[in-house]
Amino acid sequence: MTDVKHMKWWGWGIEGVGFHFEDKPAFAPFVQKAVALDVRTPPVPPLAFDELTIAPSRISPTFEAELAAIVGEENATTDAMERVVHTYGKSIRDLLRIRRNEIARVPDIVVYPGDEWDVQQIVDAAVAAGAVIIPFGGGSNIAGSLEPLPDEQRTIVSLDLGRLDRVLEIDEGSGLARIQAGAQGPSIEEQLNAKGWTMGHFPDSFTHSTVGGWVATRSSGMQSDKYGDIADICRGLRMVRPGAIVELRPLPSTSTGPSVREMILGSEGRLGVITEVTVQVHRQPAVREVQAYFFPNWKAGLAAMHEISESDAAPSITRVSDARESGFSLATAKESKGVSGTAQKVLFSVLKRRGWNLDDMCLSFIGFEGSESHVSYEKKLVGAIVKKHGGIGVGKGPGALYDQKKFDTPYLRDFLLDRGAAADVSETAAPWSRLQEVYDSTVAAANKAYEALGVHGWIMCHLSHSYHSGACLYFTFAFVHGDDPIAQYEVVKFSIQQAFQDAGGTLSHHHGVGVEHSPWMEQDISPAGVALMQGLFDAADPGQQFNPGKVLGAQVTAEDVAELVAKAPRAAEVPAS
Amino acid sequence: MTDVKHMKWWGWGIEGVGFHFEDKPAFAPFVQKAVALDVRTPPVPPLAFDELTIAPSRISPTFEAELAAIVGEENATTDAMERVVHTYGKSIRDLLRIRRNEIARVPDIVVYPGDEWDVQQIVDAAVAAGAVIIPFGGGSNIAGSLEPLPDEQRTIVSLDLGRLDRVLEIDEGSGLARIQAGAQGPSIEEQLNAKGWTMGHFPDSFTHSTVGGWVATRSSGMQSDKYGDIADICRGLRMVRPGAIVELRPLPSTSTGPSVREMILGSEGRLGVITEVTVQVHRQPAVREVQAYFFPNWKAGLAAMHEISESDAAPSITRVSDARESGFSLATAKESKGVSGTAQKVLFSVLKRRGWNLDDMCLSFIGFEGSESHVSYEKKLVGAIVKKHGGIGVGKGPGALYDQKKFDTPYLRDFLLDRGAAADVSETAAPWSRLQEVYDSTVAAANKAYEALGVHGWIMCHLSHSYHSGACLYFTFAFVHGDDPIAQYEVVKFSIQQAFQDAGGTLSHHHGVGVEHSPWMEQDISPAGVALMQGLFDAADPGQQFNPGKVLGAQVTAEDVAELVAKAPRAAEVPAS
Repeated sequence: MTDVKHMKWWGWGIEGVGFHFEDKPAFAPFVQKAVALDVRTPPVPPLAFDELTIAPSRISPTFEAELAAIVGEENATTDAMERVVHTYGKSIRDLLRIRRNEIARVPDIVVYPGDEWDVQQIVDAAVAAGAVIIPFGGGSNIAGSLEPLPDEQRTIVSLDLGRLDRVLEIDEGSGLARIQAGAQGPSIEEQLNAKGWTMGHFPDSFTHSTVGGWVATRSSGMQSDKYGDIADICRGLRMVRPGAIVELRPLPSTSTGPSVREMILGSEGRLGVITEVTVQVHRQPAVREVQAYFFPNWKAGLAAMHEISESDAAPSITRVSDARESGFSLATAKESKGVSGTAQKVLFSVLKRRGWNLDDMCLSFIGFEGSESHVSYEKKLVGAIVKKHGGIGVGKGPGALYDQKKFDTPYLRDFLLDRGAAADVSETAAPWSRLQEVYDSTVAAANKAYEALGVHGWIMCHLSHSYHSGACLYFTFAFVHGDDPIAQYEVVKFSIQQAFQDAGGTLSHHHGVGVEHSPWMEQDISPAGVALMQGLFDAADPGQQFNPGKVLGAQVTAEDVAELVAKAPRAAEVPAS
Repeated sequence: MTDVKHMKWWGWGIEGVGFHFEDKPAFAPFVQKAVALDVRTPPVPPLAFDELTIAPSRISPTFEAELAAIVGEENATTDAMERVVHTYGKSIRDLLRIRRNEIARVPDIVVYPGDEWDVQQIVDAAVAAGAVIIPFGGGSNIAGSLEPLPDEQRTIVSLDLGRLDRVLEIDEGSGLARIQAGAQGPSIEEQLNAKGWTMGHFPDSFTHSTVGGWVATRSSGMQSDKYGDIADICRGLRMVRPGAIVELRPLPSTSTGPSVREMILGSEGRLGVITEVTVQVHRQPAVREVQAYFFPNWKAGLAAMHEISESDAAPSITRVSDARESGFSLATAKESKGVSGTAQKVLFSVLKRRGWNLDDMCLSFIGFEGSESHVSYEKKLVGAIVKKHGGIGVGKGPGALYDQKKFDTPYLRDFLLDRGAAADVSETAAPWSRLQEVYDSTVAAANKAYEALGVHGWIMCHLSHSYHSGACLYFTFAFVHGDDPIAQYEVVKFSIQQAFQDAGGTLSHHHGVGVEHSPWMEQDISPAGVALMQGLFDAADPGQQFNPGKVLGAQVTAEDVAELVAKAPRAAEVPAS
């Protein structure tokens, strides 16, 4: 068997690692207040793997033998666990389904190519056999980009790029690195750091996602303000198509349009299998700091981030949480002992005396990178803007903690699921002038959905990824679900997505389209825009053999969403507040 | 008749404006040495308009009446001058053909829609009539993106966006402006400046090109290092398709891919007619400076630009000319009198004493924008890097002159054409590690072509548009042509383009593809990449009615180019050096 590692079949991350609250005294009361859940009630763990109903593989012995001959017996498997691991990503819908033994269709075989030529042979064999190919990277997707169509009658090949995990070459003279598509975040940074370089791409999924997946879903990272989104970072790539390889040489820019590079970015496997990406890499900075600030309220925080984006300053991270998320952050901090706990108390009492309402207070993180003097210069520019908007700097401590814990949040979702609460995230991007409206109407839409469901729900938000003309708003929502959690989740999710569209936001800033966001494509890029994209897909894949059903599919309207909310399945009993 | 203004039918810019050398004492000797041309010989002006052979319009009276009914009689014309003006852009090939009365096919009618609804009706009528639509902006294109196919049998409609010239709206809260596609550079900046804003997009063609044209050809401007290329600046747009409008709302970023915005960027009219663009705009900076520097040689200049791109500094312009272009710049300066002439002499003698070979010396311009203190800070960062690479700052004087004269260069081409010399430009982009090779092999290829032609030719270059992983190299070439100037031009142009490809550069950094660069598309993005693009075009325009023949067409190989050079039409007599 191949030694490619995967996440838990039932949840996020590595077996044995999970979220704990015992050392976070404020957590239990916070959750009780937020979603009326007592986290100390004993968890109901996911079902055992044996309890899953997994249809046998439908692959023909001939085709199986053909694939095994390409990659070697040990790299082609119809093992049930492998097939289940390759069925879903890690969206809340995925986790709910697998916990409820709802597995409509699993891939019939998982293959692990060892090089690009293997990929070409697999693709050509699958196309000839009339099979479907679903490329698989780290399996972290939360937009449903990986799942087979539930009624797929053809053989499904999950093509796992996990063995293609090397940084092949660093062009030190240009700041470019050629990386195999299946390389995961930590492995990439380790290989680059060893030579003094960094890619600077740190999505939340970093520890379990791949560079090929980042390109296929138009990923962004926490430091994208400085390093760019993956569309900026990716300068060249190779993608296997039936009988041919698209080869885009690394270029800093080009007049060659319509951009084929940008057709492949976000294509989610619908155009072919990405095997290699050439990315920008940077010398590791001399100084890297994440400073924390408090703002008296959300409006002040938003205004400060906007002014920073217009200013001469260029920080690596701009992030501000709304009051609810700030409260959540404080509640999930470990017990503050000694000096820092005392310091916090002193600070808060000072702020109170200044007239702050601590319930409105918003926590912000701003990142700085470069030489020591440059970081000082930038901090001064940013500090003046923060002050102008009534904010106050609180030093590096909380930022260091954020930096260290930034990839752990997904574990919390499994912890909540074990206790009957569903939580997930939705993010959007919109022009600065629309952000407050996006925020207000999204919060209102979520609360309306909770009310329709009769549940005690929670929604919180932070701004991240500032651009000249706008920013990303990232929402996290949670509620204690009833007997039909997926239907309930849909009411909330659809309400949030529709609120994005209605207020001028896009369907997702960096989580891809998949099947989770595809119903809003016509609203997002207009029916004529969808028709252009459909034309590209149809021309490139007339047999619909490459990850069919993703990105484009059935559409919804605002009226459909209103109807969904009106017919929401009410919880049998509204949990006590 | 409409009051939309056009450039001279036979050359660049406005009637009555041209290049003069009488006040530039070093110019005549320079040209004599560079291309063995005595600029004091009397010019042979272009032929008179009456001498052109212009085929009559083939439009049917019915279709003509239909179009006139849409836009009004005064905005639909079959006038010969109008049709000729809309036949070509302003490439050297275009100018040579028109001067030689080589007009294979002119549009049959020119229409000037007054709004988007007019455009929709024209498009729908033309599609129904089986006609061809060629959108027309400022007519400044030098890649052949505007010319009708020579053997086009269908009616050709030139759709001039000139009446759509307004800035419709500025979203001051987001730094976004909604602009009609036909608005030209100066008009846009005037409308924006009046409210304190700038788009910051200044291509060489600025005075005669439109925002719709910039988007349709993936334009870059002189200050793109700060403001971004048009692909960055363009955040939303509207494009008329048969029976429908693609509407892309302004977004700072989005996860929605494959990007339809990027399909339209660079599509050169092949997907539809762009009617409106939403662009990023910036508050006019408090300080804007272009500083000049000298480097002892090209290698030092290149290395300094690279180090600046890797540093914490972020100037608005990074530009360095090779020794030949530096010499050209000094030769086209007006006579230096008094202090500045003396200062230059003193400077040069100091540099000589330092051991500089003045023939190797390279002139550089670096732009700075922002608050006064920010500009000081950036200048300090850049100054240290310049010094490290042996360069020396010479203040704001030459930069101010460059800034003031930057849009005048195209007039020189007409001046040379009047005197029997052909001149044009070709630019590329490549990773930093390949720039020296691109430079060396392009110069060698041009010189080999000149030798094969038996002409005394010239090629010079500057680096502009620095990116993290590479930069643009912009070449200008010239030679005294013989009786078959287009065939001679092709030998030089093809040699240069092939050198770009062979050394790892792209076919153009910012001049579009058209028909001039399309022969290198397979080399540029691989045959499988071309197939993806072809699929998009075929799906979007099954009848090939939208600017057919542009971007994709017959391909060349390195062998084809070698053969072209081998069979080069030699000049009857090699001009004396």
